[in-house]
Amino acid sequence: MRITRRETFNAAHRLFRPEWDDSKNLEVFGKCSNPKWHGHNYTLYVTVEGKVDPHTGFVLNLKTLSKIIATFVVDKLDHKNINLEVDFMNGRLASTENLATGIWEQLEGPVRELGAALYCVKLVETENNYVEYFGNDPA
Amino acid sequence: MRITRRETFNAAHRLFRPEWDDSKNLEVFGKCSNPKWHGHNYTLYVTVEGKVDPHTGFVLNLKTLSKIIATFVVDKLDHKNINLEVDFMNGRLASTENLATGIWEQLEGPVRELGAALYCVKLVETENNYVEYFGNDPA
Amino acid sequence: MRITRRETFNAAHRLFRPEWDDSKNLEVFGKCSNPKWHGHNYTLYVTVEGKVDPHTGFVLNLKTLSKIIATFVVDKLDHKNINLEVDFMNGRLASTENLATGIWEQLEGPVRELGAALYCVKLVETENNYVEYFGNDPA
Amino acid sequence: MRITRRETFNAAHRLFRPEWDDSKNLEVFGKCSNPKWHGHNYTLYVTVEGKVDPHTGFVLNLKTLSKIIATFVVDKLDHKNINLEVDFMNGRLASTENLATGIWEQLEGPVRELGAALYCVKLVETENNYVEYFGNDPA
Amino acid sequence: MRITRRETFNAAHRLFRPEWDDSKNLEVFGKCSNPKWHGHNYTLYVTVEGKVDPHTGFVLNLKTLSKIIATFVVDKLDHKNINLEVDFMNGRLASTENLATGIWEQLEGPVRELGAALYCVKLVETENNYVEYFGNDPA
Amino acid sequence: MRITRRETFNAAHRLFRPEWDDSKNLEVFGKCSNPKWHGHNYTLYVTVEGKVDPHTGFVLNLKTLSKIIATFVVDKLDHKNINLEVDFMNGRLASTENLATGIWEQLEGPVRELGAALYCVKLVETENNYVEYFGNDPA
Repeated sequence: MRITRRETFNAAHRLFRPEWDDSKNLEVFGKCSNPKWHGHNYTLYVTVEGKVDPHTGFVLNLKTLSKIIATFVVDKLDHKNINLEVDFMNGRLASTENLATGIWEQLEGPVRELGAALYCVKLVETENNYVEYFGNDPA
Repeated sequence: MRITRRETFNAAHRLFRPEWDDSKNLEVFGKCSNPKWHGHNYTLYVTVEGKVDPHTGFVLNLKTLSKIIATFVVDKLDHKNINLEVDFMNGRLASTENLATGIWEQLEGPVRELGAALYCVKLVETENNYVEYFGNDPA
Repeated sequence: MRITRRETFNAAHRLFRPEWDDSKNLEVFGKCSNPKWHGHNYTLYVTVEGKVDPHTGFVLNLKTLSKIIATFVVDKLDHKNINLEVDFMNGRLASTENLATGIWEQLEGPVRELGAALYCVKLVETENNYVEYFGNDPA
Repeated sequence: MRITRRETFNAAHRLFRPEWDDSKNLEVFGKCSNPKWHGHNYTLYVTVEGKVDPHTGFVLNLKTLSKIIATFVVDKLDHKNINLEVDFMNGRLASTENLATGIWEQLEGPVRELGAALYCVKLVETENNYVEYFGNDPA
Repeated sequence: MRITRRETFNAAHRLFRPEWDDSKNLEVFGKCSNPKWHGHNYTLYVTVEGKVDPHTGFVLNLKTLSKIIATFVVDKLDHKNINLEVDFMNGRLASTENLATGIWEQLEGPVRELGAALYCVKLVETENNYVEYFGNDPA
Repeated sequence: MRITRRETFNAAHRLFRPEWDDSKNLEVFGKCSNPKWHGHNYTLYVTVEGKVDPHTGFVLNLKTLSKIIATFVVDKLDHKNINLEVDFMNGRLASTENLATGIWEQLEGPVRELGAALYCVKLVETENNYVEYFGNDPA
């Protein structure tokens, strides 16, 4: 059984490599490299897998899951600059892929302590693109 | 090849254990335990897996699948009280997880008779949470 | 300038007239008259009209508007039985139209105190139907 | 007859008054005043009113309208910092209300040259709030 | 009080004037003039205005409204070719504007017989464009 | 890591077998067999699986992926008749299943040349049905 919680946050970011100059960054990342930032309404789907507890009928309590996502992810990202202000993105390119990986690392332990397993972090950046991370990528 | 049919139904329910008093139920289930009920617009996605029939280009006829879902699931749930009026939920806590399991049990046989295999029952309770059941949970 | 805040709540209800028996209620209201209740995920859009304050760039502060909607509307309706537990629906048939009227009456004064004017209450009951009330109906 | 074109853009912004210090801005604008910016996926609906041309069956050609919106609005806003990089927002607080007003001013003339009248600029900032501007506010 | 019913239908169409050749039609209507047709999932919102009946709490019964829309509009359009098979579009360019006008003409009388007034026909052709017709355009 | 790009196209089609007469086609395919065509707004989700490139933070560049989908899929389908005008659907029944298979075959090679693997083609025909193809069906 898998259960999914949706959360949203708004943030600014920029795609660039600090060792490249603006024109090289523009070539690789296009307008996403704008040095003055841009931003998104991100939608996050956290999917957890586990057995149904026969006493509650729940895999886990969604209120608890939502609080954990707030503490470890949303409070750190919402209305923030992903490149400058988010501890777990420090030193990482602020791509959707890397952000999903960072969110996975934030949530994997806390979800395990609830007695379930993190199954998927899906992060929607725009209506036209999203990434899904299942934790099996050592990159 | 997997094919998915979406259906909707509206129902009332309440999360509670009859052997617990109201305050214990409130502690575990929060406002979802309200003794006077609350309700949802549920969205159901039934995903079926099978080979494409070369004569029709279909895994199965969606009209037939829709009728089966109506007969075994939607007609029993729509505008009903899940705790009091739904035979296949009798004696079960009316959580989204248990409801998805019940829907799976209702559909697995009839879908097999159509020559395909039920792959997933996805049940969306609110815009912020849904469950997916793949039939492999003995709970 | 009009500004709109979206809120959601889940509730149980039933359409019926107490002076009619179940078969008459069934004839007029169909399955919406089920004596054991059913329910919905309601989506509420509150639209307010006013001048833009040159100091803030706002018609009004949406956080304040959201708190007012919570206090006067959502906290009274969410996870409740509209027929039995909502003071401002007391003695009223729990149709979407009457609920929108009741919500208007709850919000009109508090919005005026914020220095703006309530323009429209839009209440979405299912993906297939919604009502809009503009406060000009004496019924 | 009214016809509406939807467009999207992503941008960074910040709500603040330069003559106020950070703590005063925080008090009034909350986390939207973050000095390191945040951002949104904005959705813009441009509604135009006019007669249907009997030769084309159109109020106006939507491809032409879309190009005008691109030139005067979207190209100036997409992947930009609204506070720092958008000429028509120069000296204006970057609220949704002011942005809608600015977009109206950008489009009113070009739409009139197409033989139609700009009726409404609707700007959706998040799934929970949007503004509508009809051009009749002298502020 | 306004109440809106949403319905959907799928149809093929083509934008062209029979007195123009293919290259002239292509110049004016672009790929929408493809002689071999293309098609859409149309979404139709029918908004009706009226007083709330104190006995039912309804402006009108949505099931009745839905049946009227089915009889006069959806059954004639669904899985049809708008240019070739829809009586009320005979001799009319199959633009979204003209289709909305035709739908208005189909529904105005029957809605009046229900004791309410047709207020708006909104027709969504793609996620990026829709028209709204209020019946006041003599074209 | 999986990354998904959404694209849309509008097309006409008809479900039928040329060796069957209209009444046999009507019996099997219902109104989808209408000889004068009908059509849809199709939504296509292309999911690609791969490692995250540490230099870019990307599985692959979405702009490149979008161009490949345009060249091999969308430009061939948009505003076209699937039965008559789409080379890769030649001789195939225009069902959603077969169209998803055709799109997979179009994209598998070009995606591999980008250094990633096509994981899933999801094709949404209406809000109530979609298919997913993972390339493992030899039909």
